[in-house]
Amino acid sequence: MTANHFDRVDGVHVCDITDPDDVRLDNFRDLNSIDRRPDLPSGKGLVIAEGVLVVQRMLASPFTPLAFLGTDRRLTELAADLAGNPAPYYRASAEVMAAAVGFHLNRGVLAAARRIPERSIEQVAEHARTIAVLEGVNDHENLGSIFRNAAGLDVDAVVFGSGCADPLYRRAVRVSMGHALLVPYARAADWPADLNTLRQMGFRLLAMTPAPGATTLPAAMTATHGERVAILVGAEGPGLSHAALKASDQRVRIPMSRGTDSLNVATAAALAFYERARA
Amino acid sequence: MTANHFDRVDGVHVCDITDPDDVRLDNFRDLNSIDRRPDLPSGKGLVIAEGVLVVQRMLASPFTPLAFLGTDRRLTELAADLAGNPAPYYRASAEVMAAAVGFHLNRGVLAAARRIPERSIEQVAEHARTIAVLEGVNDHENLGSIFRNAAGLDVDAVVFGSGCADPLYRRAVRVSMGHALLVPYARAADWPADLNTLRQMGFRLLAMTPAPGATTLPAAMTATHGERVAILVGAEGPGLSHAALKASDQRVRIPMSRGTDSLNVATAAALAFYERARA
Repeated sequence: MTANHFDRVDGVHVCDITDPDDVRLDNFRDLNSIDRRPDLPSGKGLVIAEGVLVVQRMLASPFTPLAFLGTDRRLTELAADLAGNPAPYYRASAEVMAAAVGFHLNRGVLAAARRIPERSIEQVAEHARTIAVLEGVNDHENLGSIFRNAAGLDVDAVVFGSGCADPLYRRAVRVSMGHALLVPYARAADWPADLNTLRQMGFRLLAMTPAPGATTLPAAMTATHGERVAILVGAEGPGLSHAALKASDQRVRIPMSRGTDSLNVATAAALAFYERARA
Repeated sequence: MTANHFDRVDGVHVCDITDPDDVRLDNFRDLNSIDRRPDLPSGKGLVIAEGVLVVQRMLASPFTPLAFLGTDRRLTELAADLAGNPAPYYRASAEVMAAAVGFHLNRGVLAAARRIPERSIEQVAEHARTIAVLEGVNDHENLGSIFRNAAGLDVDAVVFGSGCADPLYRRAVRVSMGHALLVPYARAADWPADLNTLRQMGFRLLAMTPAPGATTLPAAMTATHGERVAILVGAEGPGLSHAALKASDQRVRIPMSRGTDSLNVATAAALAFYERARA
């Protein structure tokens, strides 16, 4: 097999790659590099899906893969999903992949897509009943978990206030199980003033806080049962900023037994989403 | 300052260490080594607390520190907690610590304690109203998160079935925010037969599962409101084994919107704990 071998396997455009320096792998190169990784928003700005399930979710999302890179085994697993897809599947050994990507990839398959134009708050909120609004969530794993929880617990969209990490970074997408590609999100251009957009659209702005004087979660969600609701969550540690708390309609707390550090931000968000869906 | 400098600072027994090979650091050496780390149960079997908060939690726990290793800055932060403590505080630079520990330690302070004899299921269940029972939770971060969630959401004890990771490994303790040292736990010697011990003590055994025919979480927790409850949670992916499901009293599901993969095991556990505390 040469580096230019090209074949159609079960309707998939398969190219065998044996040289890790092959330029066709550039969209997958140095994925752990802080300043060269292809999914840097300021660089190539790609989105990388990792693993069979996340690649499948990308195929179901508005992101259109430019190419796939994976082992023969993953090609077999994805064959039905990829049939008829015009993007090439670069088939390589685990060793060639590791040399190009920069580390051994347990999940055995990647897809690279271009980013799509981001939506506005009005667009993602238009048909939403429940929205999560995040401020200062700068950890990719927490951000990914919040998307996963949003998808599982009936949250229709996510809005980013200031200080949040990139939801389309590979690790966030992976931890989200691909839901970062599926749950619509928008960024506030003017924070927290843009919360008024949600309020004007009829959303009640519920700010999650450990403050003892806040309304309890069950009471708050029961009271807003028939309304549109935006759930505001701040970073672990500092929580929501004073400005964001002030711009919200109500402060809401999770009843907790042993101190306020005892829930991670994604877990606290999950409880709020759950209680909202329950009510 | 020599390697043997010894001083009492605000009632703390402080020893300055400048040589990373100093044998007094052996309890903190090579923390990332798969086969030499001092918190390997089959090796030295220590418990390592990492960071100011977790060290404080260890001081409040049944684990008695043998020694501390940290920077001067962390000594200042912990001075009030350490006053009168007989264990030495090995004060070192970040560089000396990194050389001994094997990596740069952001949190700047460690404590090492001996493990304590493990308790029996009867002991941890005796005064408990709610227990979490885990099967196959072999990921240290998930395990740590479950302890953190248990502490925050009124779960009194944890019981391990088969296939669980070591709750006293440094990373599990860190992710638990130290609650792995505080929430009592026990191991089943005979799994799942030991579930009968809990049943005989009056616990209703509720098995979390994504199976569509299961009772919903709110209904299950409302129905068992006045009873003692054990919440069984299985590993992400496979879930509880057939044997564990069969040995339980009731199957319980979290109502979810977009597929059963959409919650992490620690998050699913948190929702069950929350609903239990809520009811």
